[in-house]
Amino acid sequence: MVQSTILQRVEQLRQWMRRNGLSAYIFPSTDPHMGEYVAAHWKSRQWISGFTGSAGTAVVTLARAALWTDSRYWLAAEQQLAGTPFEVVRCGSNVAGAAELAAWLAGALGEQGQAVGASAWVSTMAGIQRLDRELTSRGFVLNADLDPVAELWAQRPPLPATPVWVQPLALAGRTVAEKLADIRAELRRNRADALIVSLLDEIAWTLNLRGADTDCTPLFVAYLLVLPEKAILYIDPRKLTPEVRTHLRENGVEVRPYGPIVAERSMTIQYDPEQTNAGIVRTLAKEQMTNAAVNLRFVRKASPITPMKAVKTEAEIAGFRRAMLRDGVAMVKFLRTLSPLRREGEAPALPDMTEMGVDAELKALRAGQEGFRSLSFATIAAYGAHAAIVHYEATPETDAPLQPRGMVLIDSGAQYDCGTTDITRTIALGPLTDEERRDYTLVLKGFLRLSMAVFPEGTTGTQLDVLARYAMWQDHKNYGHGTGHGVGSYLCVHEGPHQFRMNWVPAPLRAGMTVTVEPGIYIAGSHGVRTENTMLISEAAAGWLCLEPLTLCPIDTTPIVVEMLLPDEVQYLNNYHARVREALLPLLDDEEDRTWLIEATSPLKLKNEKIKELKN
Amino acid sequence: MVQSTILQRVEQLRQWMRRNGLSAYIFPSTDPHMGEYVAAHWKSRQWISGFTGSAGTAVVTLARAALWTDSRYWLAAEQQLAGTPFEVVRCGSNVAGAAELAAWLAGALGEQGQAVGASAWVSTMAGIQRLDRELTSRGFVLNADLDPVAELWAQRPPLPATPVWVQPLALAGRTVAEKLADIRAELRRNRADALIVSLLDEIAWTLNLRGADTDCTPLFVAYLLVLPEKAILYIDPRKLTPEVRTHLRENGVEVRPYGPIVAERSMTIQYDPEQTNAGIVRTLAKEQMTNAAVNLRFVRKASPITPMKAVKTEAEIAGFRRAMLRDGVAMVKFLRTLSPLRREGEAPALPDMTEMGVDAELKALRAGQEGFRSLSFATIAAYGAHAAIVHYEATPETDAPLQPRGMVLIDSGAQYDCGTTDITRTIALGPLTDEERRDYTLVLKGFLRLSMAVFPEGTTGTQLDVLARYAMWQDHKNYGHGTGHGVGSYLCVHEGPHQFRMNWVPAPLRAGMTVTVEPGIYIAGSHGVRTENTMLISEAAAGWLCLEPLTLCPIDTTPIVVEMLLPDEVQYLNNYHARVREALLPLLDDEEDRTWLIEATSPLKLKNEKIKELKN
Repeated sequence: MVQSTILQRVEQLRQWMRRNGLSAYIFPSTDPHMGEYVAAHWKSRQWISGFTGSAGTAVVTLARAALWTDSRYWLAAEQQLAGTPFEVVRCGSNVAGAAELAAWLAGALGEQGQAVGASAWVSTMAGIQRLDRELTSRGFVLNADLDPVAELWAQRPPLPATPVWVQPLALAGRTVAEKLADIRAELRRNRADALIVSLLDEIAWTLNLRGADTDCTPLFVAYLLVLPEKAILYIDPRKLTPEVRTHLRENGVEVRPYGPIVAERSMTIQYDPEQTNAGIVRTLAKEQMTNAAVNLRFVRKASPITPMKAVKTEAEIAGFRRAMLRDGVAMVKFLRTLSPLRREGEAPALPDMTEMGVDAELKALRAGQEGFRSLSFATIAAYGAHAAIVHYEATPETDAPLQPRGMVLIDSGAQYDCGTTDITRTIALGPLTDEERRDYTLVLKGFLRLSMAVFPEGTTGTQLDVLARYAMWQDHKNYGHGTGHGVGSYLCVHEGPHQFRMNWVPAPLRAGMTVTVEPGIYIAGSHGVRTENTMLISEAAAGWLCLEPLTLCPIDTTPIVVEMLLPDEVQYLNNYHARVREALLPLLDDEEDRTWLIEATSPLKLKNEKIKELKN
Repeated sequence: MVQSTILQRVEQLRQWMRRNGLSAYIFPSTDPHMGEYVAAHWKSRQWISGFTGSAGTAVVTLARAALWTDSRYWLAAEQQLAGTPFEVVRCGSNVAGAAELAAWLAGALGEQGQAVGASAWVSTMAGIQRLDRELTSRGFVLNADLDPVAELWAQRPPLPATPVWVQPLALAGRTVAEKLADIRAELRRNRADALIVSLLDEIAWTLNLRGADTDCTPLFVAYLLVLPEKAILYIDPRKLTPEVRTHLRENGVEVRPYGPIVAERSMTIQYDPEQTNAGIVRTLAKEQMTNAAVNLRFVRKASPITPMKAVKTEAEIAGFRRAMLRDGVAMVKFLRTLSPLRREGEAPALPDMTEMGVDAELKALRAGQEGFRSLSFATIAAYGAHAAIVHYEATPETDAPLQPRGMVLIDSGAQYDCGTTDITRTIALGPLTDEERRDYTLVLKGFLRLSMAVFPEGTTGTQLDVLARYAMWQDHKNYGHGTGHGVGSYLCVHEGPHQFRMNWVPAPLRAGMTVTVEPGIYIAGSHGVRTENTMLISEAAAGWLCLEPLTLCPIDTTPIVVEMLLPDEVQYLNNYHARVREALLPLLDDEEDRTWLIEATSPLKLKNEKIKELKN
């Protein structure tokens, strides 16, 4: 982005603000559907500031401009915003709090009574209320009805209009009618008639449809209104094939053009204030003021779809297992290219590859697998000190060549027609320092301890999270991210409501949920380690749950300090490797792949067993 | 309690209810100060129902009567209430929820619009508001201003009037002036002028005073109002010695008679809605309606004193250490009386003792220690299957003699002038079953794993709780209570705000806090195990905390299945025992005590070490 372009846009915005009596305008990084991947059409925060990070809030006043972002992006933001009017404000969490913004505005604007603008359409209802409260308490007035973007953004990309397709029942496992019946039962319990669904993965899940409007996730832009006798899908009609139209008709779903939801009669409408954009709710609320025949009541409640979607059907679980086989084959083929290094005594024969090359090669191998659709998120391939940057994404400027020492951290995944994958492996490329080996083993110990947990029904991820941290805490090491998240079934790679994390997440873990286990250690300027499997929560006995690994791929055993592992940890790792070998070996034709897999999954031996062997 | 007496009281109450237009009346088990031990004067729930348990809510309608209590008391309540008008309603938690009560009343009363009575003086402000909301939603009207007890309770015990004394600064570690200054600083942050303090331990802590009004806790009945320039203690003046009067005067504390707090001028008053009784707040709120010169604003906020009190001063920590030495000596002397059993091959020589005998003997030994004041809670001495009843308290009817097999669980503690103790040991009295030995070891593993934890500042007890459960969860065993609680400094044995428990408790653990570690396993009809130490939270390194055991007493090693322990667990246990021996041996004169302690604290050896020894 040329700096003068940003300067020009900010100046245009300020003229627009003066015309509209606003002293400041806030651009969050969100879109109307609050998804992880924002379509180009809604990247207005990037348009105004030039900052490309996934999380960040821009604020422009008549005299100043600032961008809040979290530690992942502090460095990148400083670089990208140099020479623009934007100053970088460092954020603790990944979204600037309303109180933070209001406090900054109080400092920047001084005088009270001024109007601050923000668009209700890209903020949640709860978010806009928090912002309103904080601005009011500082003496400002929030105007959430004005949006400069439509007027000022000259070459704004259009809304995506890619076709939608049906996710077969054999993969989804439940019909749209069944899902709608469950949602309606939940609405009746809350004495509500209708539900606003605005999260794109919830719409796709409910309707057994998929699309291609956003990166890395098979979603399509729409709103859904579930009513007692029918549902209404608000969507660009160009996206609908005849097959999809039939599917919708058969399931009692009417189609209307994408845009605000209209209430045709009096009713009680449920929505999730933390997910639903304020524009859609406020438009409905206003409508009844102008239409005497319509009397609306609102019920604010967490989405009933989130917990339904999180518990996978048998068909979805079978799909995950197929996806993991394909993903495992691609991973093994890729890891084998790094393998010559693994034989002691031989000269290193590292492939001539950079971090971006890792991404390209791995993507090509995955793309060769049956049912591959796309990556499920941007690959993190981070060599050496880059691996200490938790959300590192190689760019041509930073792209480091792999070298025959240290470790490369590879966090990657794919969308297959039958499931979504998410896996991290940290691979030794040559000699390691003692600290690297120790950190690798501490991460592995946490990974194994949590993976081995058995826990009663009703347990939450917060209650288990420490298991992944205990070993490294003894060494006074920790990581600043959560330990795991749900994974969608050919949907979003990050899914709620459950998580493994220290912050309180009240959603209990339930049999049939997927969840990742991914502890890490990050030593700035030196190295980073993360090991991640996607797991299925399964019943261990009546009332008791456990984690079953879905991911099928060897974990590098060469960096392990074996003396640091406990016997049950070694046993678990060996059992896991036996399972990986058994699953993947029949799928590998190439003799070199087969040899590599057998070696990579050979059992780890405790020191005393090794000594015993040497003596015999 | 004779059943006809209860019947008579219920009939008198119903006449009073008719006179006052009430259809039901609710008696909680609380008093105006929401403490764990209620003075006899306020045991109105026991007076009306005859039920003696510590937790239970009685409700009387014109036709029915019911008592809610939790699983600890289901059996006892059925027995005690047989032949009375009261039916037992089983409660999940230890207090009947407002929604539960309202739902029951809806069933019992049927018709809407009826008035339900409860006393604001024995409910918290938040509690009475919840009750009001729930009753209103069921169509009832709450009347919280009427209290039948004063009128109907014929031989009601008077309010306690025991003398108060000063806790020396050498033991408290901080002056009253310093504590009041901290409280006032907190009030200024909240833009409040005054603080209502109604919890008796918070008043005792703030004023460096102690008393003898309640069982097991050195508290005195009073209210405290902290103002910017002074504090006012509402207390029965007969309790004040000249020394205490001087102490109060020197610290700017005025004295008024015990009773409602009076606001003499307009101000903003802070109170904790979950701790402060509704009577005191409502009286203040009403006062301003009748006094035009007084305009009051209220700030509702968690007590600022709770977290201050939880972090002990150096003097308090030193006091805890002295108290633990005394308590350890008493425990060792007592445990030695059970020791002949511990020598293999010899005939069992169990002392002729019952559960109540354990309590008496242990109390006598503690009473012989310097600075002993009282027990810190009612001793749980539970033999065999009784130990599976978590809050078992032996009565003459249940009092079981110890026998030379199985285990006895002893959970006990004392108040010393310089600190409060809380310790649980489970002792093998003879041969154990494999399950008893396995459960003993699983509890020990949880106890050790949590005791060994290192964790970053900001960690909460909820985040660590699972460490005490992990091992037993692998065996599909669990316990239904929290894993630990704070301990007062010559104050309440159960202290907040922090806890180890699965339910979310947001208060972070901080250096200088005390906390117990007490996992257990309870097999109904068979046996129970719990092992408990009181710990000090200490700094392990900058930004990192750990737990240091304060309790000094051997843990029975004879039931341990050594193969189930990990090397670091054995090492911790051995180090702990070395520390216990080193601390207590110099304090024991009796040669038999010394011999016993040396044997009880001798290092546990792993199997391979034992084998090695045998071979040599």
